[in-house]
Amino acid sequence: MTNKQTQFPIAVIGSGPAGLAAANTLLALGHQPVIFEKEKITGGKLSRWHQLFPGFISAAEIQEQLIGPLKKASVKISTETEVKTMKPDSGGLEIETASGEKIIAKGAVWASGYTEFDARRKEEYGYGLYKNVLTSADVEEMLAKDGKLPFDSADVKRIGILHCVGSRDEKVGNTYCSKVCCICAVKQAIEMKKLYPSAEVFNFYMDLRLFGKGYEELYREAQMDWQVNFIRGRVSELAEDQQGKIRMKTEDTLTGVPMKMTLDFVILMVGMEGKRFSFLSENKNTDGSDFISYPENFTGENQTALPNVMVAGACKGPSTIVDAMNDGKSAALALHQYLISQAEK
Amino acid sequence: MTNKQTQFPIAVIGSGPAGLAAANTLLALGHQPVIFEKEKITGGKLSRWHQLFPGFISAAEIQEQLIGPLKKASVKISTETEVKTMKPDSGGLEIETASGEKIIAKGAVWASGYTEFDARRKEEYGYGLYKNVLTSADVEEMLAKDGKLPFDSADVKRIGILHCVGSRDEKVGNTYCSKVCCICAVKQAIEMKKLYPSAEVFNFYMDLRLFGKGYEELYREAQMDWQVNFIRGRVSELAEDQQGKIRMKTEDTLTGVPMKMTLDFVILMVGMEGKRFSFLSENKNTDGSDFISYPENFTGENQTALPNVMVAGACKGPSTIVDAMNDGKSAALALHQYLISQAEK
Repeated sequence: MTNKQTQFPIAVIGSGPAGLAAANTLLALGHQPVIFEKEKITGGKLSRWHQLFPGFISAAEIQEQLIGPLKKASVKISTETEVKTMKPDSGGLEIETASGEKIIAKGAVWASGYTEFDARRKEEYGYGLYKNVLTSADVEEMLAKDGKLPFDSADVKRIGILHCVGSRDEKVGNTYCSKVCCICAVKQAIEMKKLYPSAEVFNFYMDLRLFGKGYEELYREAQMDWQVNFIRGRVSELAEDQQGKIRMKTEDTLTGVPMKMTLDFVILMVGMEGKRFSFLSENKNTDGSDFISYPENFTGENQTALPNVMVAGACKGPSTIVDAMNDGKSAALALHQYLISQAEK
Repeated sequence: MTNKQTQFPIAVIGSGPAGLAAANTLLALGHQPVIFEKEKITGGKLSRWHQLFPGFISAAEIQEQLIGPLKKASVKISTETEVKTMKPDSGGLEIETASGEKIIAKGAVWASGYTEFDARRKEEYGYGLYKNVLTSADVEEMLAKDGKLPFDSADVKRIGILHCVGSRDEKVGNTYCSKVCCICAVKQAIEMKKLYPSAEVFNFYMDLRLFGKGYEELYREAQMDWQVNFIRGRVSELAEDQQGKIRMKTEDTLTGVPMKMTLDFVILMVGMEGKRFSFLSENKNTDGSDFISYPENFTGENQTALPNVMVAGACKGPSTIVDAMNDGKSAALALHQYLISQAEK
């Protein structure tokens, strides 16, 4: 039994969850995927995460499950290779990398992922200036690397976690919700209580968007078992005092009470942003974001302006890992069907 | 070029978005799917919806896009056929229907969908007793059928929309969030303003879980362009007055102000519930819900206790239509890979 459709490669751009799932799917359908990854290492953001919500599953483990079958099948992964443009070619698709290399492929799955919101843009929070202000991404990386944060347990009395940094914020131009920060904040709050059992942890949120399986349960666990505090309020300002501690100003919007609090360190839950790609200009988004737009027709949401290029994952908008993976599979299937329809002509 | 893996059928249980997407995928992969649908008509809940969030796309149109290719390929769809049990058989899988028919299949995708929360269980809202209390599902069905509701425009001054009916409510045993009701409520609020331009529309919510693409934008549109009111508060009671109008008691939890209001009619945003299946008992959920559980390992979330049965869509938990479709594709792929691995043995 054979299932080979073509010996010509299919390009997969990005080796995050969407790209890896797409590559695995293409492989299962008898295609020969080749992966282009602009970073030095594979896995996308997953390569820097520690444990995933809501079940605290190891990010490295998931990455291995996604990469393992590709390695076994000797799928070529070119790291430090940024794809700059794609254009139709008589053979299918001409792909040009940043270094000027040109590749002809039958088609491509574009899964370039998202960019973290640059927390320095929220000047009022002092990220990059105050050493005790971290981002959620910093926390993941530190925990993945060392299993701890650079604060002495004895000194830490109060930790603040600020939701929606760079999300739902017209001042920075992002009106959309980044979808996963709320549940990531709940997970990190529990992790902070594990690292600093005697510290109080305060989450400052606007809405608790705990929409997924096990999310609400984790929120309850955070409250009931770990005594994490949740305060509805948007923090207006952070300032560093002479001891390096962080003074915070907010208002509890459920009670209307203005609050001031001194925190030992603060975690900013940074949202997701997109990136614009010139050759996908017809996929320019109308909502002002730099995510790649797609037809909102429910059945063709992986399609781009180029018929043999499908788009998948968080480059289309904020996404959970499982949703990005399923979207990667969906894109690979759409490409498979397109290529078969062309071959039958 | 041929892609036929087997001439033996694959059973797809359920003809909602997940099942139809799974059947289309199986077809594209060279399998012969047969669909079992317990209702009289195909499409699952989609067959009763009017327009979908956030883009007001016609539900009938999406259904046609999903069913069209199956009809063209003469895929057999057995309506009024409820699958009762499945068990391993030497040929693969023995499927027994409620009428006692037995079918041998190579494998199956279980996509049986969700059940609407029965609003009568929230006795304090009087659904089924007060004629001016509808559910969100009633509204969709009425709009799909007639394009209107049975209330005279001149009489309607105030409309109430209650979020989280049967969701995030320990009293009815559902602690989880049903994910799509918030955005559906925003969509229906706009639809009410279109039908009753001079009426005031009040949405009573706990958190606004507008996590998806275009959701936040639709919420803004509802506020800015349609003057829909959003009040944070859980409604404690509805009562019918002598004119059939609805008296409502709540508290604005942002200001702490108790509120009483008379409404011409009320829409209850009913959540999603699962259904338990005895033969999937190893997939019993630990969160107390009747959704089918699955391994939370990110890469194998379509698997069940039976190796040739994959599970997909809203029977696993609340889901959007696109996510259910992508999960259906993912399940079909997982089954395809399993069958290939068996054939290679």
